[in-house]
Amino acid sequence: MSFTVSGVNCAAATPLNADLTPDLGLFVAHCRHLLDLGCHGIALLGTTGEANSFSVAERRQILEAALRAGIAPDRLLPGTGVNAAPETVELTRHALANGVTRVVMLPPSYYKGVSDEGLFAAYARIIESIGDERLKIVLYHIPQVSGVPLSHALIARLIEAFPTTVVGIKDSAGDLSNMQAIAAAHPGFAVLAGADPLMLPLLKSGGAGCITATSNLVGDSLRVIYDHLGDEAVVEPAQARINAWRSLSNSYVQIPTIKAMIGLQSGSTGWSRARPPLLPLGDAQLSDLREKFALLP
Amino acid sequence: MSFTVSGVNCAAATPLNADLTPDLGLFVAHCRHLLDLGCHGIALLGTTGEANSFSVAERRQILEAALRAGIAPDRLLPGTGVNAAPETVELTRHALANGVTRVVMLPPSYYKGVSDEGLFAAYARIIESIGDERLKIVLYHIPQVSGVPLSHALIARLIEAFPTTVVGIKDSAGDLSNMQAIAAAHPGFAVLAGADPLMLPLLKSGGAGCITATSNLVGDSLRVIYDHLGDEAVVEPAQARINAWRSLSNSYVQIPTIKAMIGLQSGSTGWSRARPPLLPLGDAQLSDLREKFALLP
Repeated sequence: MSFTVSGVNCAAATPLNADLTPDLGLFVAHCRHLLDLGCHGIALLGTTGEANSFSVAERRQILEAALRAGIAPDRLLPGTGVNAAPETVELTRHALANGVTRVVMLPPSYYKGVSDEGLFAAYARIIESIGDERLKIVLYHIPQVSGVPLSHALIARLIEAFPTTVVGIKDSAGDLSNMQAIAAAHPGFAVLAGADPLMLPLLKSGGAGCITATSNLVGDSLRVIYDHLGDEAVVEPAQARINAWRSLSNSYVQIPTIKAMIGLQSGSTGWSRARPPLLPLGDAQLSDLREKFALLP
Repeated sequence: MSFTVSGVNCAAATPLNADLTPDLGLFVAHCRHLLDLGCHGIALLGTTGEANSFSVAERRQILEAALRAGIAPDRLLPGTGVNAAPETVELTRHALANGVTRVVMLPPSYYKGVSDEGLFAAYARIIESIGDERLKIVLYHIPQVSGVPLSHALIARLIEAFPTTVVGIKDSAGDLSNMQAIAAAHPGFAVLAGADPLMLPLLKSGGAGCITATSNLVGDSLRVIYDHLGDEAVVEPAQARINAWRSLSNSYVQIPTIKAMIGLQSGSTGWSRARPPLLPLGDAQLSDLREKFALLP
């Protein structure tokens, strides 16, 4: 099966300076490290990347920093979906203008309980406003955060209306059967698991790969699984390692914990911050984390 | 009791042009009409105003249009809270630079289940970044839409830290006892009901007034209630009228229905549109609405 987006993609975290602006230098170093680890792509500016806490201007700066550092545009999958359609259009056009043709797009998510018809109209107007044949969109289903689920009927309608543009979905709801059903219904449409333990079973049933937070830490092990599907002797210890890291990252609020773990792994202090409403770990949490981190496989 | 914000404030709806950009001329005419009806203030760019569907640039244009039309800055309470703190700061500074000192501020609402500590940090950083003694903030509690409730402990902490800035709250959760408890705990802090039937009982127990959607249609009756508290012979029929209009506005998805009703009331066609994910009413709905509208008191 050939997909427009596939493999191990990292929902890259965003390090911050002391004034809580993005630390672009450290971010770019992290992106390079992720590619060195074996990640196929970097899904920057997602939920883990705190994208919704950054202004349109900051989001542009972050993407431009990665490109300026020489990271190839086809390795980047920026999140460009915000509540206001004109800004989603602006961010997506900005990516395209910089040669980045693949984006991950949240639906507008302020209003809850909106109709499929309304969500279809939102996506359709955005795609038509952008009007660029190169554009490839990965839809983003993360109802536990966005509050706005993407139904199978909506997904089918979007694929039918924009078959060369709507090429995949990141499913972060954690329900493997939902991902499998989407993959089964739409061969060639890239279903990407949002949770690390689900990439393996999803790949076995027609999925395309993953976009996950833990790949900030163990992208190499995810890559091992992707490359050695079916070789249980190789896959099992890799999955066990991923699960151990993921479990620790869920000890506290996930995003600051992942950032703290990247800090412990890399030795850089710029990972110790988060932009409110997220907060960095407290001292007791950090000390507990440090202890358990030392024991990770 | 003296409040910094009080009375009948209208959560003004935003009419749209055929291309779904804001129809500034019609919006300004509506604002004038609302003041003529007797509204004390216009809470533009709130949930009813579809503010989250507009870009920062569009939000600035909408506020500027109202000011350019000669509406006094002290009659305007724009919503300025968005997910990205730098944009909340920008929108609030823009209001202040135009002499508008009172704003309604949503918390950042993409991440759910965040701590009071994190929400306090978010508001505190915004207030400190703005650094303007003139600023008066009405907090915005609308958990059924934003997904982010504001707890009593958070409200108390914000009032304590910023007593001259954090002056009130719009409570749209529909639970009168919650509003009464906040009013009782913080005399002088303006609790504003987000639902029309609750202004009356709230005013009787220390509340300051309302910010509601139905006041787009029957602001005059709300003003009657506000001015004649205790005079049941006047208040009761006014409340009955409000309730009838409100009930009809809830027949279909509320925001487009209110817009359609403003259109029926004013005869202007620019109210027949909504920005996705909201959609205008369908023909059958409109025809049903028209019939019932004709029977309203």
